[in-house]
Amino acid sequence: MKDRYLDFVNSSFGAGVARSIGLPRPEVLRRHRADQPEFGGMAAIGAGPSPALFDALVDVLHAIGMTSVAHESAHGWLPVANRHGAMSGRFEPHARDSVASDRVQALLFDATGIADSSDLASLYGFFHDALRSVARSGRIIVLGRPPEACANPRAWTAQRALEGMTRSLGKEARGGISSNLLQVAEGADIEATLRFFLSPRSAYVSGQVVRIAAVPVEKPADWTKPLAAKRALVTGAARGIGAAIAAVLAAQGAHVIGLDVAQARDALDQTMLAIEDASPSGGAHAALLADIAAPEAPAEIASALLAMGGIDIVVHNAGITRDKTIAKMAQDAWDSVIDINLSAQERIDDALLAQNVLHEGGRIIGVSSISGIAGNLGQTNYATSKAGVIGRVESMASVLRARGITINAVAPGFIETQMTARIPLAIREAGRRMNSMSQGGQPVDVAETIAWLANPASAGISGNVVRVCGQSLIGA
Amino acid sequence: MKDRYLDFVNSSFGAGVARSIGLPRPEVLRRHRADQPEFGGMAAIGAGPSPALFDALVDVLHAIGMTSVAHESAHGWLPVANRHGAMSGRFEPHARDSVASDRVQALLFDATGIADSSDLASLYGFFHDALRSVARSGRIIVLGRPPEACANPRAWTAQRALEGMTRSLGKEARGGISSNLLQVAEGADIEATLRFFLSPRSAYVSGQVVRIAAVPVEKPADWTKPLAAKRALVTGAARGIGAAIAAVLAAQGAHVIGLDVAQARDALDQTMLAIEDASPSGGAHAALLADIAAPEAPAEIASALLAMGGIDIVVHNAGITRDKTIAKMAQDAWDSVIDINLSAQERIDDALLAQNVLHEGGRIIGVSSISGIAGNLGQTNYATSKAGVIGRVESMASVLRARGITINAVAPGFIETQMTARIPLAIREAGRRMNSMSQGGQPVDVAETIAWLANPASAGISGNVVRVCGQSLIGA
Repeated sequence: MKDRYLDFVNSSFGAGVARSIGLPRPEVLRRHRADQPEFGGMAAIGAGPSPALFDALVDVLHAIGMTSVAHESAHGWLPVANRHGAMSGRFEPHARDSVASDRVQALLFDATGIADSSDLASLYGFFHDALRSVARSGRIIVLGRPPEACANPRAWTAQRALEGMTRSLGKEARGGISSNLLQVAEGADIEATLRFFLSPRSAYVSGQVVRIAAVPVEKPADWTKPLAAKRALVTGAARGIGAAIAAVLAAQGAHVIGLDVAQARDALDQTMLAIEDASPSGGAHAALLADIAAPEAPAEIASALLAMGGIDIVVHNAGITRDKTIAKMAQDAWDSVIDINLSAQERIDDALLAQNVLHEGGRIIGVSSISGIAGNLGQTNYATSKAGVIGRVESMASVLRARGITINAVAPGFIETQMTARIPLAIREAGRRMNSMSQGGQPVDVAETIAWLANPASAGISGNVVRVCGQSLIGA
Repeated sequence: MKDRYLDFVNSSFGAGVARSIGLPRPEVLRRHRADQPEFGGMAAIGAGPSPALFDALVDVLHAIGMTSVAHESAHGWLPVANRHGAMSGRFEPHARDSVASDRVQALLFDATGIADSSDLASLYGFFHDALRSVARSGRIIVLGRPPEACANPRAWTAQRALEGMTRSLGKEARGGISSNLLQVAEGADIEATLRFFLSPRSAYVSGQVVRIAAVPVEKPADWTKPLAAKRALVTGAARGIGAAIAAVLAAQGAHVIGLDVAQARDALDQTMLAIEDASPSGGAHAALLADIAAPEAPAEIASALLAMGGIDIVVHNAGITRDKTIAKMAQDAWDSVIDINLSAQERIDDALLAQNVLHEGGRIIGVSSISGIAGNLGQTNYATSKAGVIGRVESMASVLRARGITINAVAPGFIETQMTARIPLAIREAGRRMNSMSQGGQPVDVAETIAWLANPASAGISGNVVRVCGQSLIGA
């Protein structure tokens, strides 16, 4: 689906029109392209008292080829950078009339040592000075601690307060700049998550809070192919978001098993062929036809996958909508949506886990929805099923921990697909613009977020629900 | 602040205009009035498998004088009602052409036994049949279990799914009908909460999830004066929401100590006088002048309250806004908002708790904000402070449990006050209408919610943040 307004106001003619009559001009978000460097430019570093992550941050920035400048709040950054042989300098606030190339790509604030509400003033100092210095499609990342792991209520309170700051910054920043909060447990590895949030791959993820636990992490040998040698099942892979997920997982090195119903055979074959063509030397992919709602499906899918040697990643993307207000909804519309979007996943996971089809260290990734978080008119069935997907993540995370399997979900907001193209214009426009990016997301935005959660180095992320919504206004 | 649009479309002339040109017509919400019965009419009862709360529900309905009709899903309701000597009949779906008096005041669904996603179909059966039968300003209440207390992931998932249903119903119901989910632990007492959500006192509370733990509960001798003999401190009591809180707590029998700064002395005196006038035979009230941000304030407030014999309820209502985007914000605007809205509360609570000024079994109630949940443009300072208030609730709940003290917060949405009256018209109108009630709330709506949390029979409610927002679209 095309966002014609976005295209227009960013065309040379349309930009002039938009400027002269004062129309909003959503930013064309920078997204990952294989032919362009993923990282580059400078990060400005700020910090509260006793920051714990300077070494880890310097390491990652160095590894991805970003330089850094230290704000006055980041005492001690320069010595750490020097010790690692990393380029660094002092942050100078961006002058109003300076050119865009002076701007920094990212603001990184180490808030791990904030232990009292009075320490929050350090956030003011840094963001007051630095917010205007961020380039378009830039990044704001605040790194704190999981509040409930704090030593006392004062620290817990101050860490929880960071959420209000990060979300407000996302609403102030504009220009395609995202703002997210990482709650990093002591000893947790942040590399996979920091790479994702610094890269264009996280273009449409903003206003989120992600928790990272301290668990042993397997770093990929090649960060451009972190899923090499991993086998991934993607349900509903024939079209739309599912096809994008299959393509991104394959591009990151995974062998993809694309599953869809028999009626979608042609579309599925085309999707799988396109993936092969895109990376001819890549993984071995396969199409699997099944109706996930059929009683025999879990056993059949499990044996088919077992015959391939089992899998490492499951993405439960298949889902349907059958919208009507509850008073007008037919029983079948309720039953089929709950069964396909929720119960079928439960049955399939049970089969995959009972027979160890999903390997130790595996990944389960569900697809929830903003409707599952906030509820939606005309979607009692869909919202209930998608709230259930969140329940699935919350209930299974600790059960799966012993096997090193993580479970998380993404919750898409307004994503430009054939489904959203059918929404009436006025409602579609409202849905598109009511977020901090003033535009809908692309299927690839959901897919990239899933690939990050599937990364072997994301072992510390489980039990998270990450919205892919450009920081939609809508929530609960 | 008047909502002139609401008044107009509900006038006899305006209603005709609105109908003929198709304007939305927000419902005039029914609110508590001392001269009108609080409860009445019928509740329609639905249930999933193995409902656990029929006895408790019959008890409360009987006590408040509501009759019931049982939907076919509520097997076993009639015998329970009969056993308690309560009037009950069978639910007949509301015919399209029937008169408003046939409608039910409330839909109550006992979902406690829902233990698998396939059980969710019972929700469909009841709400499909019954949603159109609810009267204006009616109530939808779904009673489930705290998900994480469930015996297995399937039950946890299904209980978590209820949230999507309840929130969607709130968006479909219209006509001032609220929809809320109560997560009732086994053995928890639901009377205070059920009374609140069934009464007009909860007019502007919708789309919320409330957890009730199983703890010993002291029932008030007189439910119209549940706070009799309780002493309550209300900060920022001179005006607006604070004055409404003081008035409602006093009307429910509390002795109120209204606190405000010296500059607000006249307004505070007037507020306290108005309270005395409203219930001359009521509690003994007092005004206390203090600047809560002053270093000596916690000790001074603690000794003043100790001299009165200590207190039972603290409402941290005092708060300020100093809005500007972070790049333009002065350091003092940051510091003062964080200090008054958050740090001062921490210092005061510490003083009250250290000297047992707040009695065992006491109540601490904070005032957060939707901005604290979702972040807000131009409110980095305010949103950070109000997210901190949520952190305060989350961090202190378990610490205070041993003393029987609960801590909760309300999070107001758009409330009609002098503060919101200063918002520019277009933004004010958007803020007012972007919720399921299509209107702003009144200060009394916040105050009534606080009074429910302060009720001695609300002992099982701690660690909750309850939005008073008419189910605002805005969230996180």
